[in-house]
Amino acid sequence: MRRTCDTKIMKSSTRVTKGKIVVELSTQRTPDAFPLKDWIPGRRRVPTQERSQRTRRQILSAAEALAKNEGVGNITMQMIAAKSKIAAGTAYQFFDDRDAIFAEIYEEWAVTFWATLNKATATPWTDATWRSELRGLITQMGKFYLASSPRWDIIRYVESTKQGRGAMRTLLDANISRFSDWAGPLFRARGYSAAECKAICGLLVRTIRGHWVYGVYTAQELRELSKTAEDGTTAIVEVKLTRASRPRAVSGKSV
Amino acid sequence: MRRTCDTKIMKSSTRVTKGKIVVELSTQRTPDAFPLKDWIPGRRRVPTQERSQRTRRQILSAAEALAKNEGVGNITMQMIAAKSKIAAGTAYQFFDDRDAIFAEIYEEWAVTFWATLNKATATPWTDATWRSELRGLITQMGKFYLASSPRWDIIRYVESTKQGRGAMRTLLDANISRFSDWAGPLFRARGYSAAECKAICGLLVRTIRGHWVYGVYTAQELRELSKTAEDGTTAIVEVKLTRASRPRAVSGKSV
Repeated sequence: MRRTCDTKIMKSSTRVTKGKIVVELSTQRTPDAFPLKDWIPGRRRVPTQERSQRTRRQILSAAEALAKNEGVGNITMQMIAAKSKIAAGTAYQFFDDRDAIFAEIYEEWAVTFWATLNKATATPWTDATWRSELRGLITQMGKFYLASSPRWDIIRYVESTKQGRGAMRTLLDANISRFSDWAGPLFRARGYSAAECKAICGLLVRTIRGHWVYGVYTAQELRELSKTAEDGTTAIVEVKLTRASRPRAVSGKSV
Repeated sequence: MRRTCDTKIMKSSTRVTKGKIVVELSTQRTPDAFPLKDWIPGRRRVPTQERSQRTRRQILSAAEALAKNEGVGNITMQMIAAKSKIAAGTAYQFFDDRDAIFAEIYEEWAVTFWATLNKATATPWTDATWRSELRGLITQMGKFYLASSPRWDIIRYVESTKQGRGAMRTLLDANISRFSDWAGPLFRARGYSAAECKAICGLLVRTIRGHWVYGVYTAQELRELSKTAEDGTTAIVEVKLTRASRPRAVSGKSV
């Protein structure tokens, strides 16, 4: 659990408003490290040779295409090798088994998930900005989930394996932690304890996730779900900010 | 989509309060029909012979035990037959393939899910009761999900198949519909349109589901998640009831 405040000034922008030059210093948070480590058992190194890399990529694409047509659970290494136009023995040089291939596809998905989340949570909440920050996160994550829909069955399948179940939970915890660093300071300033902040952020993460977790398959569905997710999380934040659990003694300093 | 108001008086209770006999007529909603129909392709009839029923039950238990130890995706009909101490040919007399067995386990799970949900949504919300109704639902569903944890990998696996993905969505839609009949009238009375009610109920269902959907594995986790889910949904309902979208013209009648 990261509990330090790893913010740093990354960006300054200059704009002209009403004839005055305004320099804005934004405190941007750097991305957190990708949380999945060594979760794929017996994983092979990515080959350095260009030809091998191409073969590896072919295997991954073949597995993805087969999953779509045959169902994830029905695929064998033989089928994947045949579709990639390589010998089964060659496929085993790259991956231990079918599940290792799907885990690799899951990790690629998770890397993009993580990058999208980190980008959307770079600027900590303030009283003035939290609504647009929250909307931005929902919009960006929703688009990511819509783009993920062709891989949805593979993601579900991996999450039904022992390793995948662990990976899913690691990602969820890391998501809540990142969210807490992003939104937490505003709640802390209202007197909530660190544990209360984490609970609020966990609630918000799960509320948003409950909207994507059955897959997002059309732009229309994305619009509806984004609207509802924003609506619900905004209501929760409003209530939490209005009714601070334990109003902090005002000491002249405030966020 | 059921849109009729299928409530009927099912229960009346008599109690004595302050020396007076109080008869309470509760308007209890009957359970909705189980929404999954013909979703398992080539499904066999459940045998009538007791001995066959026992064998069928053995196959299902063997598949569940194997899934736990070997991982759902790695199991074959041969393994299931061996574990059930029957010939593979006999296993095929009961089920087309491994996925049909897991679909059957999923449906058993879904039947209990549906019964639990229907029981928890029998009494429509009123201004006086919605908090305790909502708490009751969360408590009952949470317990159900905790009890489901040994089957969680199978459920995930089935949801990664084409049929299972459809079933999951059918169940979600039916859940939102049931929830709308339960909570909707209170929102309607505040002037929300039918579409707005459905959106609010969808939001509440997804918020609660976001708390269970990664599995619930311990009583401690159940307590924390129940508290957060209740906290969040209560905040949403409070905001929605306070800020009615379009206050209804008061005509003397009200709920």
